[in-house]
Amino acid sequence: MLQTILNHRTIRNYSNEPVSREVLQDILMAGTRASTTGNMQVYSIVVTSDPLLKERLWEVHFRQAMVKQAPLVLTFCADFNRFNTWCRLRQADPGYDNFLSFMTAAIDALLAAQNCALAAEEHGLGICYLGTTIYNADKIIEILGLPHAVVPVTTLVVGHPADSPVLTDRLPLDAVVHFEKYRDYTSADIDRLYAEKESLELTAKLLAENQLDTLAQVFTEKRYTKKDNQTFSQKYLEIITRQGFMKNRDGG
Amino acid sequence: MLQTILNHRTIRNYSNEPVSREVLQDILMAGTRASTTGNMQVYSIVVTSDPLLKERLWEVHFRQAMVKQAPLVLTFCADFNRFNTWCRLRQADPGYDNFLSFMTAAIDALLAAQNCALAAEEHGLGICYLGTTIYNADKIIEILGLPHAVVPVTTLVVGHPADSPVLTDRLPLDAVVHFEKYRDYTSADIDRLYAEKESLELTAKLLAENQLDTLAQVFTEKRYTKKDNQTFSQKYLEIITRQGFMKNRDGG
Repeated sequence: MLQTILNHRTIRNYSNEPVSREVLQDILMAGTRASTTGNMQVYSIVVTSDPLLKERLWEVHFRQAMVKQAPLVLTFCADFNRFNTWCRLRQADPGYDNFLSFMTAAIDALLAAQNCALAAEEHGLGICYLGTTIYNADKIIEILGLPHAVVPVTTLVVGHPADSPVLTDRLPLDAVVHFEKYRDYTSADIDRLYAEKESLELTAKLLAENQLDTLAQVFTEKRYTKKDNQTFSQKYLEIITRQGFMKNRDGG
Repeated sequence: MLQTILNHRTIRNYSNEPVSREVLQDILMAGTRASTTGNMQVYSIVVTSDPLLKERLWEVHFRQAMVKQAPLVLTFCADFNRFNTWCRLRQADPGYDNFLSFMTAAIDALLAAQNCALAAEEHGLGICYLGTTIYNADKIIEILGLPHAVVPVTTLVVGHPADSPVLTDRLPLDAVVHFEKYRDYTSADIDRLYAEKESLELTAKLLAENQLDTLAQVFTEKRYTKKDNQTFSQKYLEIITRQGFMKNRDGG
């Protein structure tokens, strides 16, 4: 397994070969064995393979070709709907209409997603996470018919890889790991920890393409801008509220 | 790997045998290979083994004995501090003081956590996730010295298991999986999907212990009450705000 974890590459091109039912079953089973708060299993996985539905999902995932190419789109949702329904049918009054419950359910969904991703890779398949799930969660709710108390958190596309990209760079381990307590970064630390990343050929290419001076500016001015972040923050908070996870904050 | 995933048990008792540096290194490396939005790696892992610090963490994790017993406590944090510092040193203006950025960073942290959990288990170690991380995030921030733009999201205790619990029950696969679109649950569905869980010996034991009629009531009245959920929701939202992830919502 360590090899599968260490060899992870995000795959952005897929063949049209389908994924067998048995392999899909393995992937989903792996998802359900992840840790879940209090064994409540407050998440759902929506497996979409229908071309028309996938085309609608492709539209909201910023038209990334892989959403149409890959045979499977797995949408992982924070889901208290099933649990609340169970409670109401069992003379129990659910108190899960709040932000803590959203976090609990989102954590369940994400741990399950990573198990599914690794199980898929163990079967020789490729995966890609779609961050656009949060940007257009409202449209995903509409397309997949998600009821109250269900919010999409992440998406995996899964299929047979049509390319074999090189391993993506990572910061040195001591950039993300702190021993005992958090040790804040001096400017010398930052220079050292980002040196390799900043000297990559890929970085030089990005600077030339974008006519910018630093890689950090590629992120702040092109990829993840303040304006977009603010727009999508507001939107996602509204969706969490509308789906019923902000009751005590908003007095509803 | 599939075996490791399928055999996952939460371990609540640990021997005092330490975890070697090499194994810890493997676990952390596995964490860093998880998918991360835009390869920003906006998370941190704080590895605590010092007994005095672990005792303080034990205190805020509801005094669960395993926090003191297990040699390693790994706190996974949503972390834009390092990235923001890098941006500022590179003439880039970071726009990550909003809820979308918190979600992005929390997702990074959780995918890394699950990779670490599986790598630990692959090495024969046991793990337990601590949901109490969110309940007392403010105290964890203080104990671990987490700066602005860093919020703890989950914790793993890691060590050599001192017991071997049976596999925990899960709902049938079709309880959490939906094909193509979400299919809402009828009361007959709920009865069928929860039948096995409700007939477990463990359930009978919990009902007797708590003098309650249904398992759902054990959750709503004892384990995860509305009152607690509301208190901790308010607290965690305040922490996210104080750490700088709600700027455009709160006008700050």
